[in-house]
Amino acid sequence: MDRKILLQEKDIPRQWYNLAADLPTPPLPPLGPGGKPISPEMLAPVFPMNIIEQEVSTQRWIPIPEEVLDMLYRWRPAPLRRAVYLERHLKTPARIYYKDESTSPPGSHKPNTAVPQAWYNKQFGIKRLTTETGAGQWGSALAFACKLIGLECKVFMVRISFDQKPFRKLMMQVWGANCVASPSNETNAGRKILAEMPDTPGSLGIAISEAIEQAVTDPKGQTRYSLGSVLNHVMLHQTIIGQEAKAQLKSINEKTPDVIIGCAGGGSNFAGLAFPFTADKINGAKIDIIPVEPTACPKMTKGPFVYDFGDTACTTPLLAMFSLGHAFVPAPIHAGGLRYHGMAPLVCQAIVEGLHTPRAIDQIECYKAAMTWAQTEGAICAPETSHAVAAAIQEANKAKEEGKEKVILFNYSGHGLMDLSGYDAYLSGKLSPYSLPDDEIRKAGETLKGFPPAAKNKSGKW
Amino acid sequence: MDRKILLQEKDIPRQWYNLAADLPTPPLPPLGPGGKPISPEMLAPVFPMNIIEQEVSTQRWIPIPEEVLDMLYRWRPAPLRRAVYLERHLKTPARIYYKDESTSPPGSHKPNTAVPQAWYNKQFGIKRLTTETGAGQWGSALAFACKLIGLECKVFMVRISFDQKPFRKLMMQVWGANCVASPSNETNAGRKILAEMPDTPGSLGIAISEAIEQAVTDPKGQTRYSLGSVLNHVMLHQTIIGQEAKAQLKSINEKTPDVIIGCAGGGSNFAGLAFPFTADKINGAKIDIIPVEPTACPKMTKGPFVYDFGDTACTTPLLAMFSLGHAFVPAPIHAGGLRYHGMAPLVCQAIVEGLHTPRAIDQIECYKAAMTWAQTEGAICAPETSHAVAAAIQEANKAKEEGKEKVILFNYSGHGLMDLSGYDAYLSGKLSPYSLPDDEIRKAGETLKGFPPAAKNKSGKW
Repeated sequence: MDRKILLQEKDIPRQWYNLAADLPTPPLPPLGPGGKPISPEMLAPVFPMNIIEQEVSTQRWIPIPEEVLDMLYRWRPAPLRRAVYLERHLKTPARIYYKDESTSPPGSHKPNTAVPQAWYNKQFGIKRLTTETGAGQWGSALAFACKLIGLECKVFMVRISFDQKPFRKLMMQVWGANCVASPSNETNAGRKILAEMPDTPGSLGIAISEAIEQAVTDPKGQTRYSLGSVLNHVMLHQTIIGQEAKAQLKSINEKTPDVIIGCAGGGSNFAGLAFPFTADKINGAKIDIIPVEPTACPKMTKGPFVYDFGDTACTTPLLAMFSLGHAFVPAPIHAGGLRYHGMAPLVCQAIVEGLHTPRAIDQIECYKAAMTWAQTEGAICAPETSHAVAAAIQEANKAKEEGKEKVILFNYSGHGLMDLSGYDAYLSGKLSPYSLPDDEIRKAGETLKGFPPAAKNKSGKW
Repeated sequence: MDRKILLQEKDIPRQWYNLAADLPTPPLPPLGPGGKPISPEMLAPVFPMNIIEQEVSTQRWIPIPEEVLDMLYRWRPAPLRRAVYLERHLKTPARIYYKDESTSPPGSHKPNTAVPQAWYNKQFGIKRLTTETGAGQWGSALAFACKLIGLECKVFMVRISFDQKPFRKLMMQVWGANCVASPSNETNAGRKILAEMPDTPGSLGIAISEAIEQAVTDPKGQTRYSLGSVLNHVMLHQTIIGQEAKAQLKSINEKTPDVIIGCAGGGSNFAGLAFPFTADKINGAKIDIIPVEPTACPKMTKGPFVYDFGDTACTTPLLAMFSLGHAFVPAPIHAGGLRYHGMAPLVCQAIVEGLHTPRAIDQIECYKAAMTWAQTEGAICAPETSHAVAAAIQEANKAKEEGKEKVILFNYSGHGLMDLSGYDAYLSGKLSPYSLPDDEIRKAGETLKGFPPAAKNKSGKW
């Protein structure tokens, strides 16, 4: 059997899969001012209506436009690969497969949604997209997509990342985007912060505020905002990953995986792989589906299921999710993409239903796993992705203990070539194990006092 | 037709192709002290005998060991891709294909030879390899290969690159290599330079001297030196590229390419793609085969064909090659891999025979081509690779002028994610066009006075 399992272009999925159609309990709606469910029209200044329609859709299958497919063919279908060298190293009877999402030009799964988002905006007559970026994965993906489609792109990059990661900014510039450090002098939100704290390192919350402000205040109405995770339409676009993986496993007559794994910050790469298999689980398949988070930011394993803002600046609608509170400031761990306080509502609802079983892993174990990966399989994974690798190794070792020929599938969400400073910190002994203490979790939860509770799960725990 | 043309593992080439068997005039032998051809034994302190045998072999096909193939499967067979987005942009009738060598874990073609070199050394009982690296591509590839095979790896990295490219050094560390700045305090050569010039930025010549010194002075005799280009066995190992490309073109019933292109520093990625097709040209096929160099370092287009040292420090045997002289100091262009003063003797002999037609392109045109590439095909290429992209664009435009449906094939030797500072220099307007002036070439040639002349070509030009 080949180590790479490939699909031809003609076999690419032609529809996105919408989990909202199949969840036993429909996900709770976002709430607007006054605690009332928001209407599509209220989102119109921020997103184009064709994307809002996807956001609120409960249609099971949504066709992928041909023009979007033509752009995705630059790197899709993506390879499914078997990690034979890791299997040998672990001496596990498990067969470990991974979907290689690191092969896109920006190096991660993010373009799977950046491209259709840019396309739908262009269709709607929009000329310019704004967004924020932390570590830079999302900003590069949107810059790439806007260049292909012919939109202007403005990225507000958190000041500390802007200064520390000049290469990410350069990637965006190569793709023609205008990337500025946030807080900037270009928005009221940015100017206000700069006046108060001229030396601030910035935050994702501030950058989101700046990006949304520039979108909604364009006097010509030709600018919109674009988000790279959390929302339903983002999860939707990523489901091409899991659908391809299914077709690839089928092509080699492999059974349905026993275990499916993805790291989860806002949830999109995990959802992309997991949702098509979650449908099988709803229909009776026995699969452990595991979103993995850092012990430094354990929203899924330790946070309450509540209505909370999506951003620190409290400008978004309230979303029903596991959250450490919008004011939560996570420790400066190196997997920047996993430091978000909340989680995609669709993933949260699947957790509440018992369909997904979250797991938290410490970053030291994750870097150890990343080193094992680099020294067996060869490639250097993103610090975020290392959480999926670590969980896959845990599961492969468990299969060995149990003597079971399990099939493990995980999402290799991106390479780490732009994030080697995290490896540097690990190799030079500057990182320590860190789990968020319970009283910090309690404190974080206090910021949510008075927020509407979300649904209870079956056990009545939340 | 798919944009990616893939081979299965079972279709990987199982032999390397040796151009030395087919060149109309056999290449001139390397000369040792006193101007006499060196014997294999004289190389034994530097390389293991099984590699020396490959270096001097004139056998046409050399089997690739199964264990080497098992390691190459991590990324090989590599995709052949059709650049449809660039074709559309250029409105050319040409079909442009490129062999994507950027998919190896270190990001370039270099592991194609690093892996077999490490394997043959291990077979020979060697425990440790030393090498030098400039920009870092070769050092990372050898670090990667040594980790897979279980050898220690010591890399002397030119001080200025060591300081300016910390991420390359980190890659090597992730793969377990010991990477030090050169000149170092670990060798006589290094200490001597440091005593005279404590603030020197270093040079490839010094780093080579340090690496060779550590190899030949190991009291246990368990250390050898490894070189990433120029030599015959390196060209040999790279021919897997061209053989795969042939099989891939055949699999889609595409004709033999009209034009074949590769950038050429020491010659190995170019040779890897070109040599299997050069055999066809020797047998009568009409193909333009073009090694591309920067106008800042025009050894193939403007240098004399002479015997010269391979290194600045004059420690290697004399090689018959086009050379700007071992003392040549090229301008600090951003394609670090193309700044070498000489060229692989096998490539030089093919040029002399009229089989290869070198071309020099200015780095500004190359960066423009790289930007066009990133904004159409999507990926960010290495500054070296941009020279091949620029030549492919020239040829595609020529095909358009001529109205001919040409097939153009080039080698996409590596990605540029670790070399974005070159793009920064270009985008911020810090680069200027630069061709080495004729009197500089004359001056460089003067360092070769008294060196043995090499063979004349058919025109008697040299």
